[in-house]
Amino acid sequence: MTAERIEHRACFGGWQDVYRHTSTVLGCEMTVGVYLPPQAEHGPCPVLYWLSGLTCTEQNFITKAGAQRYAAEHGIILVAPDTSPRGDGVADADSYDLGKGAGFYLNATREPWAKHYRMYDYIADELPEWVQANLPASDVRAISGHSMGGHGALTIALKNPGRYRSVSAFSPIVAPSQVPWGQKAFTAYLGEDPAAWAQYDATALVAEAKERLPMLVDQGGADEFLDNQLRPQLLQAACDAAGHPLELRIQPGYDHSYYFISSFIGEHIAHHAKAMR
Amino acid sequence: MTAERIEHRACFGGWQDVYRHTSTVLGCEMTVGVYLPPQAEHGPCPVLYWLSGLTCTEQNFITKAGAQRYAAEHGIILVAPDTSPRGDGVADADSYDLGKGAGFYLNATREPWAKHYRMYDYIADELPEWVQANLPASDVRAISGHSMGGHGALTIALKNPGRYRSVSAFSPIVAPSQVPWGQKAFTAYLGEDPAAWAQYDATALVAEAKERLPMLVDQGGADEFLDNQLRPQLLQAACDAAGHPLELRIQPGYDHSYYFISSFIGEHIAHHAKAMR
Repeated sequence: MTAERIEHRACFGGWQDVYRHTSTVLGCEMTVGVYLPPQAEHGPCPVLYWLSGLTCTEQNFITKAGAQRYAAEHGIILVAPDTSPRGDGVADADSYDLGKGAGFYLNATREPWAKHYRMYDYIADELPEWVQANLPASDVRAISGHSMGGHGALTIALKNPGRYRSVSAFSPIVAPSQVPWGQKAFTAYLGEDPAAWAQYDATALVAEAKERLPMLVDQGGADEFLDNQLRPQLLQAACDAAGHPLELRIQPGYDHSYYFISSFIGEHIAHHAKAMR
Repeated sequence: MTAERIEHRACFGGWQDVYRHTSTVLGCEMTVGVYLPPQAEHGPCPVLYWLSGLTCTEQNFITKAGAQRYAAEHGIILVAPDTSPRGDGVADADSYDLGKGAGFYLNATREPWAKHYRMYDYIADELPEWVQANLPASDVRAISGHSMGGHGALTIALKNPGRYRSVSAFSPIVAPSQVPWGQKAFTAYLGEDPAAWAQYDATALVAEAKERLPMLVDQGGADEFLDNQLRPQLLQAACDAAGHPLELRIQPGYDHSYYFISSFIGEHIAHHAKAMR
């Protein structure tokens, strides 16, 4: 995997970088945001992976969340990848919630998606390998994300026991099999088989989770997608049934935007810092 | 002056709003970002005006600076206007540093600019009047800004003794009469008269300043515009000659971006909070 650093900016005593690298599993060039806290100059630091939502690139989180301040306080590296494969040769759809910018953190099995849309393998394996080989990173990891990326964080953590110390999410799509965004994407990427869908659905996966990660979910009470697409009570019910811990917080008045994320990202980073200590 | 609230988002316990209102002095519709801290629910709060740089709208500061956290801590309203008059009937130029997005916070006297380009009057008088009349704002004010907006903050504070309690700037154009950005804009907006230029040049105004405001300036040491456009040592020399206090900090490694602003905006807001107490 080749890599080139295309942005390099001082930020809170560390560096907000962006890399472009070649992904073998995705078969394309990818960009990824990397925040190195000041502590990274003196030795390996733990890594928090951040998965963004529909339509985002690596830029949304690194420019809008205000997370660097807290990462610098706790000595945590932030790794914020793009949300889908990219490039002229990559299949796309004429809508914001399928194709580019909407990879849904799964491995597609249906055409025309199967060749490039393998975001699950990229996030779970290839990207961490690149991080370990190229950044001053320890092997201690946590994962978080927003909306589609909250779905990605929850499912990837649940499917990979031992890999992460903690998981959190903002406004996650907790039950993609039961809501329009997920049903559209899963049908296109995975076909009609319910068993294939269940492999990427947090509310299904939590029933058979092999570890009990500290799990924090924040959801805006005024989120315009709350009742139709997000439905956090389905995750609460699944966690209750499985005996899995979940700290689910409904934050009154907050919507689906980065103003919501910026207001609580400090508490999420503290949650992960405690687990990664 | 009519006004309409076009964005309203919960943020750090308060509200990040955007208003669209009709400016009489500019002769057009303007947008302005307003952050109301939680304390504003209980009574009038002091106001920090933020003036943005070339090419910006009100969105850059409110989405990228991460200032709301600190404003919420100190109970300060943030008012972030646009950087020029806007609209189809407003003169423009085919470059990023003149015309729309480049109002330079002055009152233009030359055509085709004189009709709409009166950002000085808008920021110094009309906008504060609107703020006092429409927001839970006290009459205690401070002013800050970035690059062209740092120039605006310094000059407007120096020209209006008694109006502001404190002033600060990031990477300001301290001596527009002596650098390419300022020379181009002043020639277009004001003509060739050096006396007209001096009325909007902080290094000239500081010699006759009638009060000694607490003045904080942060400048990135790796700023790509440092030697050609910004030249903070000219402000230092003018302040030394006039006996005006100036805390000028060169921050090694930092560039001209919002990553720089976000890293130190907390210290600027603390500077203003202390003066507005």
